[in-house]
Amino acid sequence: MSQHHELNADTVHKTWDNSIQPRLTIDAGDTVTFDTRDAADLYYSPDSRSEDIEKRGPFVGHPLTGPVYIRDAVPDDVLAIEVMAMEFASPFGWTAVRKGRGLLPEADVTGPYLQIWDITDGTHARMRQRKDIAVPVDPFAGIMGNALALEGAHSTMPPRVTGGNMDNKHLTAGATLFLPVQVPGALFSTGDAHAAQGDGECCVTAVETCSRITLKFDLLHQKNFAEPQLRTHGPLCTSTNAGSYYATTAQGPDLFANSQQAIRYMIEHLMAERGLSWEESYVLCSVAVDLKISEVVDAPNWLVSAFLPECVFV
Amino acid sequence: MSQHHELNADTVHKTWDNSIQPRLTIDAGDTVTFDTRDAADLYYSPDSRSEDIEKRGPFVGHPLTGPVYIRDAVPDDVLAIEVMAMEFASPFGWTAVRKGRGLLPEADVTGPYLQIWDITDGTHARMRQRKDIAVPVDPFAGIMGNALALEGAHSTMPPRVTGGNMDNKHLTAGATLFLPVQVPGALFSTGDAHAAQGDGECCVTAVETCSRITLKFDLLHQKNFAEPQLRTHGPLCTSTNAGSYYATTAQGPDLFANSQQAIRYMIEHLMAERGLSWEESYVLCSVAVDLKISEVVDAPNWLVSAFLPECVFV
Repeated sequence: MSQHHELNADTVHKTWDNSIQPRLTIDAGDTVTFDTRDAADLYYSPDSRSEDIEKRGPFVGHPLTGPVYIRDAVPDDVLAIEVMAMEFASPFGWTAVRKGRGLLPEADVTGPYLQIWDITDGTHARMRQRKDIAVPVDPFAGIMGNALALEGAHSTMPPRVTGGNMDNKHLTAGATLFLPVQVPGALFSTGDAHAAQGDGECCVTAVETCSRITLKFDLLHQKNFAEPQLRTHGPLCTSTNAGSYYATTAQGPDLFANSQQAIRYMIEHLMAERGLSWEESYVLCSVAVDLKISEVVDAPNWLVSAFLPECVFV
Repeated sequence: MSQHHELNADTVHKTWDNSIQPRLTIDAGDTVTFDTRDAADLYYSPDSRSEDIEKRGPFVGHPLTGPVYIRDAVPDDVLAIEVMAMEFASPFGWTAVRKGRGLLPEADVTGPYLQIWDITDGTHARMRQRKDIAVPVDPFAGIMGNALALEGAHSTMPPRVTGGNMDNKHLTAGATLFLPVQVPGALFSTGDAHAAQGDGECCVTAVETCSRITLKFDLLHQKNFAEPQLRTHGPLCTSTNAGSYYATTAQGPDLFANSQQAIRYMIEHLMAERGLSWEESYVLCSVAVDLKISEVVDAPNWLVSAFLPECVFV
């Protein structure tokens, strides 16, 4: 009979390392409610300012809650993880812009910038200084992953074949994630909750929060995925796909450069049409603008489009 | 007072060339209904087969209806084009797979393959040999563009800063496209209608059809866009965003390679779970699967996801 477990965030780990001892052992079919810390490990407060970003020092890894050992999980299994419930668990959210990080190069970025979001109504992330901007929330875990077979400690920053920092915004409540298992027990961990994010997460942070997330674990022994796959519960972006979108496009032979250029155009649009500062615009792109590959076949120019849901203007 | 015009497809042009004489001169505020020919210039019939692809010979350019000269349009203006109505105007649609074209390299592609779609009910593109697959239609013009300032004849294949073969599936009825003007009169043309397409159009063709499209033209003199921008009328993908999605993901340092890999995983999924052939799977990806840039900031690995709306299985 399946059991329910709780795992608090009193202890976290900040690397992927298959030698980290599991905090919990469960059976397939069990559910676990995880508390997770935000990506900056509780560093920011609602009173934090842009100057605080530099004082924090270099990034040392996302604080993750886990690992969880799933009995009978063996390498080449697939771990199926259903998101039963997901809520953010902070009184505020934050988004940080930092030179040398994110999609746009240092030359574009004017300096460190911290955006604090009011998320107290539970439905929108409100830009504190701009009462006319409210991004509908749709929380998900930026990181869900299994330990790697590779020995040693590995950064939590990049997504990997066993999952990790995928920042896939469609892994909201109801979705099921399928993760490759590389070590006995899978050694699953989660963290890096986002209350809202655009596809692309262009400034490298979303509306960052702590969370309380409930996951159901099952094992598929007959599958063998090379990388994560997922199924959503229903339609995408139900909270934001509610009205018109404004989109910028950029064509050229490189999808990365096109992505940068499409975001630059969107920032110009937001500054000219909505009176946002450069930093506010970049932050809004990161938490609300979706990067789509419109076409990747009309040689030699691929087209990337950046789509802004205009429901964020209230 | 604004006027309505009609432009048939008896005459087409197959390059972008600013020396091509306009077929019609209009004022800003006017509307034009264009008939357009499909990308293969009426070559295929409902009885066409895969062998017919090679017999057609090399691609010589999309047949475009136009150019239209818009009075008072001058370089650095923006031409605003509202899609008033859009319907496909063929009794069938086609999708062709050809080695050396499309997202996947020659080594992946098994041979020329032609898919004929039944679109007679006006709401779905039905895979003729698979009664259980029906892709909701949402027609748009793959090509809307203005002539380039650059002299000479230029291929219709790549999208350009003045628009052209953008294959942006969200330019459906109600959307407004903003195109840079580079020559007096703008010299606008359209064609390459698609009844349905996924973001990415991975096999290089969608559900290809002729069309009848009505556009309203306006001029913005105070704007100066470097590349096309657009606004949708309302939510995205209302016909397909109606239920669950299955998604594959691929991470790595190159968005193009990730896109290829995500599509390979989706093809594997469709073959294993839905019993489609490799070619049927690739074609279905091209007409229904959306490529999203999930994150492009978690160095060194960016994540591309391929999203399949499962409503296509009926």
